[in-house]
Amino acid sequence: MKKESIFTLHNRASDCRARRGEVKTGHGVVQTPVFMPVGTQGTVKAITPENLQEMSAGIILGNTYHLYIRPGHELIERFGGLHKFMNWKGAILTDSGGFQIFSLKELAKITEEGAAFRSHLDGAKLFLSPEDAVEVQQALGSDIMMCLDTCIPFPATEQETIESTNLTTRWAKRCRKAHTRREQLLFGIVQGGMFPELRKKHAEELIDIGFDGYAIGGLSVGEDKELMREMVEATTPHLPEDYPRYLMGVGTPSDLVEGVRRGVDMFDCVMPTRNARNGTLFTSTGRVVIKNARHRDDQGPLDESCSCYTCRNYSRGYLHHLFKSREILSYHLNTIHNLHYYLHLMETIRAAIERDDFAQFRQDFYSKLESE
Amino acid sequence: MKKESIFTLHNRASDCRARRGEVKTGHGVVQTPVFMPVGTQGTVKAITPENLQEMSAGIILGNTYHLYIRPGHELIERFGGLHKFMNWKGAILTDSGGFQIFSLKELAKITEEGAAFRSHLDGAKLFLSPEDAVEVQQALGSDIMMCLDTCIPFPATEQETIESTNLTTRWAKRCRKAHTRREQLLFGIVQGGMFPELRKKHAEELIDIGFDGYAIGGLSVGEDKELMREMVEATTPHLPEDYPRYLMGVGTPSDLVEGVRRGVDMFDCVMPTRNARNGTLFTSTGRVVIKNARHRDDQGPLDESCSCYTCRNYSRGYLHHLFKSREILSYHLNTIHNLHYYLHLMETIRAAIERDDFAQFRQDFYSKLESE
Repeated sequence: MKKESIFTLHNRASDCRARRGEVKTGHGVVQTPVFMPVGTQGTVKAITPENLQEMSAGIILGNTYHLYIRPGHELIERFGGLHKFMNWKGAILTDSGGFQIFSLKELAKITEEGAAFRSHLDGAKLFLSPEDAVEVQQALGSDIMMCLDTCIPFPATEQETIESTNLTTRWAKRCRKAHTRREQLLFGIVQGGMFPELRKKHAEELIDIGFDGYAIGGLSVGEDKELMREMVEATTPHLPEDYPRYLMGVGTPSDLVEGVRRGVDMFDCVMPTRNARNGTLFTSTGRVVIKNARHRDDQGPLDESCSCYTCRNYSRGYLHHLFKSREILSYHLNTIHNLHYYLHLMETIRAAIERDDFAQFRQDFYSKLESE
Repeated sequence: MKKESIFTLHNRASDCRARRGEVKTGHGVVQTPVFMPVGTQGTVKAITPENLQEMSAGIILGNTYHLYIRPGHELIERFGGLHKFMNWKGAILTDSGGFQIFSLKELAKITEEGAAFRSHLDGAKLFLSPEDAVEVQQALGSDIMMCLDTCIPFPATEQETIESTNLTTRWAKRCRKAHTRREQLLFGIVQGGMFPELRKKHAEELIDIGFDGYAIGGLSVGEDKELMREMVEATTPHLPEDYPRYLMGVGTPSDLVEGVRRGVDMFDCVMPTRNARNGTLFTSTGRVVIKNARHRDDQGPLDESCSCYTCRNYSRGYLHHLFKSREILSYHLNTIHNLHYYLHLMETIRAAIERDDFAQFRQDFYSKLESE
């Protein structure tokens, strides 16, 4: 019952675990390492699908929890699936909803059967089993679906981590069984908290079940960066070479560089889009807080070395004015820039791996940053 | 000292006062009758200059009061003027700031010298004389500037109206004198409240001073539609045929049709943009309130007969979802549609006048509307 792998490895860095490859999806081939912009509620906030195409985004993320709550997966299915609903022609990965449900804290209760929770919109009592998570994602029609997993609080004891991770394994089996639309891919999520041995064990359990790709979950939950990177480093050697690896919810530009270095192929994070709306912009020389008065009279572009629509057409002074005036165009232009920065960074990373020049790229990357 | 008129009359309807012409500006020739989208703070809210170009907007409006308060006309001048600051290649008309200042009510005090007021942002004491209004607009570099005028409250007695209108005349003379950058055009504003005789008299006074165009001001201030249309009808016969006529701050789609019928060439209004953000959308069959539950499951476009980006690519159900979810894309897509509706309406009106078929157009327009 094992399917052909959807991942093709192009080449590998000779001095680290960085890999250059591609993932075949129902909506195009995605070049990896890749960053996936987050489109929580059926739109990547503040921009259009055409804006995403212009910045060569090939795959975006949708949040199952949010779409399940509103407008509902059944409605989206009636509209022909999420791609058609939101007019996006590229690939879509949906999370399982688990992470958002666990974030509800006192509104959520986890049992063997699944997650009982209340809608953050109207308090309605809801329940999501592993089977439901797959069913909802199948209705959404995403190209890559994620298993429902449990989220381990940080910090957690080894015993808590073992119990939670074991439940994730049992749920992963149920997700695998519920997965009937085989043109959609299903990824397992490696948990194991901050315990390298548990990470290894869980990776092996998921590989035994057999998925189209493997995610590293439960990171960026409050631990420091060093520990997060250690956990990635402790996990990737136990993942199969011929399947894609996805580090969930991570991270800053340097987190991406460090993730790639440790063998990760796929990333997603709200950071570029959320920071854009908060006026924090990523540039080749570090972060710019656009509301600061020193940008008020600056006629130069946000980033001299950036070729995005925003940098080609607008000054820092204008972006400062729009942000101070709370104009919607501010969120639009900032989002275009930040996502372009992330996607261009990944493009540069892919080119560096192709040249087997990743170490040099990494050194240049850090030397240009004034701050991060 | 009279300049060549910037207005060319193409043709005129044989059975009403509708006229088809063009206005020559420093940033392109504008086909009239024309609707000018409002770009209050140096951006037409929620869309880009490219969006405006795609919908064939040739001229937009900027608000002097808002730009004077933030970021300041001197800063905009340092950036090379408003066109360059906001990256808009078409024409710009700026109002004088008077209307916004008068709207501040208790924060404003009018004397012979000018308008003393407080900033709505930080309460700073400010003062705008007629000369200042021209100086600010010259610094902004708009293609068409407006004289500072006084706003007459509604209702007002004849005596109040006479005094206020006389002050507007004295200010108009001072504006005319302060107007030194002759590549920018200056329009006078006909006041006279709700008194046809005063409208006529004021038009004649302004024509004596001599402007590049004539606006009809002080309407849509609380009077009913019938009275507003009567006042337009009482004013246009007294305006010269070879100069453009601009009805300020008006209005609904039918207000535009009725204004054109009475000989108006130019319009501006926040209605299409503001309503877009409130979820009220203009269609060929009337207004649609997109948050209404009946749109939730509607897979059809907002307006079957509309060719805008929004209607070509998105369903009513998706627009409903975006609006309910308060997504920024909602404001963007709604604004594109509403402005496209207004600009397309004007295009249809221009074609009808060219064919000398305006009466038939008007009849069709009303027969299609289910409500307005």
